[in-house]
Amino acid sequence: MRKIFKTLVTLEEAIKKLYSYFEPKPLGFEEVPLTKAFGRVLAEDVYSEVDVPPFDRAAMDGYAVKATDTFGAREDKPAKLKVIGKVKVGSKPEVYVDAGEAVEIGTGAPMPGGANAVVMVEYTEEENGYVKIFKPVVPGENVQPAGSDIMVGELVLREGQLLTPREIGVLAAIGKVSVKIYRKPKVAIISTGDEIVKSGEKLPYGKIYDINGPSIFTAVKECGGDPIFIGIARDDVGEILDMIREGFEKADIVITSGSTSAGVKDVLYQIIDQLGEPGVLVHGIKIKPGKPTVIAVVDGKPLFGLPGYPTSALTIFRLIVAPVIRKMAGLSLIIEEDTVPAILKTRIHAPPGRKYLVSVSLVRDKDGNLIAVPTPGGSGTITNLANADGYFEIPEDVEFIDECEIVQVKLFSKDIKLPDLAFIGSHCLGVDLIYKLMRKRYPNINVRILNVGSTGGFMAVKRGEADIAGVHLLDEETETYNIPFIEKFGLKDKVVLVRGYIREQGFIVAKGNPKDFHGLPDLLREDIRFINRNKGSGTRTLIDIELKKLAEKLHLSFEKLTSRIKGYDVEAKTHSAVASAVLHGRADVGLGIRTVAEMFDLEFIPIAEENYDFLISADSIDKKAAQIFLEILRSEELKAEIEKNFKGIKIHKDAGKMIYIPNR
Amino acid sequence: MRKIFKTLVTLEEAIKKLYSYFEPKPLGFEEVPLTKAFGRVLAEDVYSEVDVPPFDRAAMDGYAVKATDTFGAREDKPAKLKVIGKVKVGSKPEVYVDAGEAVEIGTGAPMPGGANAVVMVEYTEEENGYVKIFKPVVPGENVQPAGSDIMVGELVLREGQLLTPREIGVLAAIGKVSVKIYRKPKVAIISTGDEIVKSGEKLPYGKIYDINGPSIFTAVKECGGDPIFIGIARDDVGEILDMIREGFEKADIVITSGSTSAGVKDVLYQIIDQLGEPGVLVHGIKIKPGKPTVIAVVDGKPLFGLPGYPTSALTIFRLIVAPVIRKMAGLSLIIEEDTVPAILKTRIHAPPGRKYLVSVSLVRDKDGNLIAVPTPGGSGTITNLANADGYFEIPEDVEFIDECEIVQVKLFSKDIKLPDLAFIGSHCLGVDLIYKLMRKRYPNINVRILNVGSTGGFMAVKRGEADIAGVHLLDEETETYNIPFIEKFGLKDKVVLVRGYIREQGFIVAKGNPKDFHGLPDLLREDIRFINRNKGSGTRTLIDIELKKLAEKLHLSFEKLTSRIKGYDVEAKTHSAVASAVLHGRADVGLGIRTVAEMFDLEFIPIAEENYDFLISADSIDKKAAQIFLEILRSEELKAEIEKNFKGIKIHKDAGKMIYIPNR
Repeated sequence: MRKIFKTLVTLEEAIKKLYSYFEPKPLGFEEVPLTKAFGRVLAEDVYSEVDVPPFDRAAMDGYAVKATDTFGAREDKPAKLKVIGKVKVGSKPEVYVDAGEAVEIGTGAPMPGGANAVVMVEYTEEENGYVKIFKPVVPGENVQPAGSDIMVGELVLREGQLLTPREIGVLAAIGKVSVKIYRKPKVAIISTGDEIVKSGEKLPYGKIYDINGPSIFTAVKECGGDPIFIGIARDDVGEILDMIREGFEKADIVITSGSTSAGVKDVLYQIIDQLGEPGVLVHGIKIKPGKPTVIAVVDGKPLFGLPGYPTSALTIFRLIVAPVIRKMAGLSLIIEEDTVPAILKTRIHAPPGRKYLVSVSLVRDKDGNLIAVPTPGGSGTITNLANADGYFEIPEDVEFIDECEIVQVKLFSKDIKLPDLAFIGSHCLGVDLIYKLMRKRYPNINVRILNVGSTGGFMAVKRGEADIAGVHLLDEETETYNIPFIEKFGLKDKVVLVRGYIREQGFIVAKGNPKDFHGLPDLLREDIRFINRNKGSGTRTLIDIELKKLAEKLHLSFEKLTSRIKGYDVEAKTHSAVASAVLHGRADVGLGIRTVAEMFDLEFIPIAEENYDFLISADSIDKKAAQIFLEILRSEELKAEIEKNFKGIKIHKDAGKMIYIPNR
Repeated sequence: MRKIFKTLVTLEEAIKKLYSYFEPKPLGFEEVPLTKAFGRVLAEDVYSEVDVPPFDRAAMDGYAVKATDTFGAREDKPAKLKVIGKVKVGSKPEVYVDAGEAVEIGTGAPMPGGANAVVMVEYTEEENGYVKIFKPVVPGENVQPAGSDIMVGELVLREGQLLTPREIGVLAAIGKVSVKIYRKPKVAIISTGDEIVKSGEKLPYGKIYDINGPSIFTAVKECGGDPIFIGIARDDVGEILDMIREGFEKADIVITSGSTSAGVKDVLYQIIDQLGEPGVLVHGIKIKPGKPTVIAVVDGKPLFGLPGYPTSALTIFRLIVAPVIRKMAGLSLIIEEDTVPAILKTRIHAPPGRKYLVSVSLVRDKDGNLIAVPTPGGSGTITNLANADGYFEIPEDVEFIDECEIVQVKLFSKDIKLPDLAFIGSHCLGVDLIYKLMRKRYPNINVRILNVGSTGGFMAVKRGEADIAGVHLLDEETETYNIPFIEKFGLKDKVVLVRGYIREQGFIVAKGNPKDFHGLPDLLREDIRFINRNKGSGTRTLIDIELKKLAEKLHLSFEKLTSRIKGYDVEAKTHSAVASAVLHGRADVGLGIRTVAEMFDLEFIPIAEENYDFLISADSIDKKAAQIFLEILRSEELKAEIEKNFKGIKIHKDAGKMIYIPNR
């Protein structure tokens, strides 16, 4: 049996099932010095054994008196009292104040007997053993009574209290040196998968670095747990099981991630069931991302089998695991997420029967409204989450959220900084460089860069999500870059197009050109495996234009010609993917920019130059950040830096010039 | 010259002046392993040296195919492809997929050459070396292209980025083992004052424990600094100066607190000026709390002289020092405070010419509105701040905020938990016990207890700030407790009064009764020094009633009688303050409850019993938490616990009975 079909449960059902077998609560306490208690949770009720202050004390520098002696005192008719002594701060008073008497006193010094108020020194004048008082005081004035802050026997802090500087101040005030706090729950972390390699090691072909290990480790810390990284287990039931056993020995919770291989996973379920009672409780959740989640309880300790995809893993961690760890750390309050309303500009379809969490980044439109921009990449990417400010939910029974609907975005952090400029479009290393130079001149400027391709860039500007898009779309008819698409996308009079730079396009072949590839006609050779680009990309349009010319020349139909090209149907979505395929021998040739060929140390055969330009929303052009962007684009500095760093990119002689201006 | 008069500046001026001499910025970096980078700030731009994923990979378990081979496939008319091999996760594919062929593939495995899509295993059936495909795929389906997450050369994270699990995930994805982060600024902390004693030591009379040392230490940690506690300096210029010098040697910032003695402070200013340029910049700020703040810059390092009062010190720390430390830690964003609107129910007067920050705790009224309740105690207390959820500002030029105005409350933390029940009134240790028993039965219940006295309790219920008030007010006329005040405070039909317990009132004298005090008439003795309670307190009313009876008996006027009592004009505000005065010999006798006398191990001479009852707002009586309160009040458990723990408190036989019910 290759696959066991299990019933998926909703998120709420999964949590309920877990809690019915495992109640998360603190496991014990430790005693630490006050200075180490910050951010921890009090494990005991704290009663004060002292009064704070322990005595009636002067709240001002001045003279301790009987208030009645000052009644009627004025600037021109001061009261005159005999100074019978002095009480210094930190000392015990040796005098008793009777009518007509005063005692000099410092702020914080104990009140002498008989006195019931302090006259501030500013309103007094002492001479010859007497003090003149120019302003009356009422009984109790400038006196802080014993126990008025904290009374002996009083409950000052209670079990479960998070300790911040204010609570530490209270504990210090009553003379506490150390404090009992809940110990942190220990959390064992195991990454699984034959493809997973520890960062720092060389990455053989077919392998990827372990993302979940370090990120879950950090997430455990963030919610008050004590993470223990057990290791990376291969997709081998025995190896995974050994690590799980080690995890249960060392920790209070075990978290695995990955092990997506159906065969391994199914055997694992059965073995976990044998490890202890009640075993596996949840085999999958009706949620996206995060469906392949396993929850088990083994002899009183929970095990969470998170999905391998980093965005899925962190999502399930946040929704299910973090609250458990927090409660075990004594943080009984679940931190509520801040929510902001934002406008969604694209219709988003939800998977049927699953709660869908859509990661979004936030930008502000010209009217100040928040716009929720779904971040590119799916749960298989880490950037989907890393680029996001938060997420919104589409419930199980909703098919889609329509464009222009308002969604409630739950923020990952309240410390989000909305970008001064949203750059959404085709990615180019030149854009990273422009941003770097912008920050060099204006250190606090914040540009959000999302990579969605040229077409995506046009759409993002149209929807008001992007201020600027980097675009390099070739119009087949006119063989012109970018300008024709302004009208095609319905953006006439709504955008400015600014000349950017020129990128060299060409064939990318292996180092030394081992297959002796020399140009377009060679694509028809039996021994040449081509790798294509995706439809809609500027590069793909360029290939097809060139191939159409070739077809004409050879008197072949375009379809006939392309059917003869081995790999014409295999599409790479990025320049890098083309280079990578060539580098690793999955293809002999592909089309891409010189910059990437150079980076991968591959051979490059130029065939054309393309215009990489900047589409700027007319609503955004006056933004300060957009002006700074243009300032850099027109600078000599950028030109020099690009020449120095990037072969294959040339700043256009008209760089920064507006080549399309709205007619309004 | 005892006092130097300096010009006070506004908060904004103080900050501007500081920044004109000192620009807070990171001081250097350190390199740490990823797992130690949580919560720190990136000190470098991070570019990726790899593609993520490094190859096109299968996003599902299934078969890698040419998409065109699946076109038209249906349940009843599957496509049939020859299985020519298998690509395992983590391995390099050794096959190339041609038309009519398929390769078995696992999620995460690299795509073999020639294939451009993956058919999920669920839609396939393999037999005899062939696989039937029941559902078509489009090119690219279930394939994650190389570099689609992160591209080689791409700027993935930029300097200044706070590192959370998501960013750690990104760094792990590109194989980073360690990361450059800004080092934490070192902050030296010095407490000053002759009265300050380190916690843990015995507290001699006239001394108090160091509050600011531990709380500022914690506050420095909270905002990303590395605190170094230098020590407690006596009010001695040489000693303070030595510690400041030590602080500048060891740290990037020096913080002192206290040294409120005018003499010491003024000399200190001059010496700091001589330590280095430009010296003292600010001598005081137009703010309350926090006026006596000193800011200096000495040879490029800032010194903050915070006020000695803990609430003042923490307030100035939060407003001025924390942003400096955060910026030096690389956290260039000042964390904006969450603000909520709340209704103020009491008029608050502001000091002229100073910005006034009013600490408040938040409760919800019956309509769900937030009510801001100013926390009792002034800047001289730590509880003023510890009981607060946040504060609101009254600008320099505003004289008062009127009752029922809406104020904007800046929250100390977004993790505030509004109380289920607000108990504001006279403090009694019995109330702490009731709360303890409530939590024993209902662990998550949250009661806010603020101590403002009986009269304050009546007012708080009237204003809708409190659900329940503990009250023990004696009506002189009727010699009845509490009930007559319901009408006096205009609360007829708006409250319920519930019988609570009986407390024994009596004279408190020194252990062994050395002055042989036996009752009221002894107050007139020449050798007896009395300590009175404040007007409005139940105890004071009791004293005065008894004294009036005595005056009648002696045929004296009340004024005549009281003028003969030594100390009648000296008022203590709490039971503890009375006991403390007697304990330390500042008075021979005072009036208070037996419980406190027992706590201080003093002698008690009973004279009356008082009713400590519970005033409950009619709007609150149906609240679940109020019902739980009553459940405990009526329980045998409370009775037993009070008998066991508190001498002088007796549960009333009618405890929990409503002795006043609104007539509506």
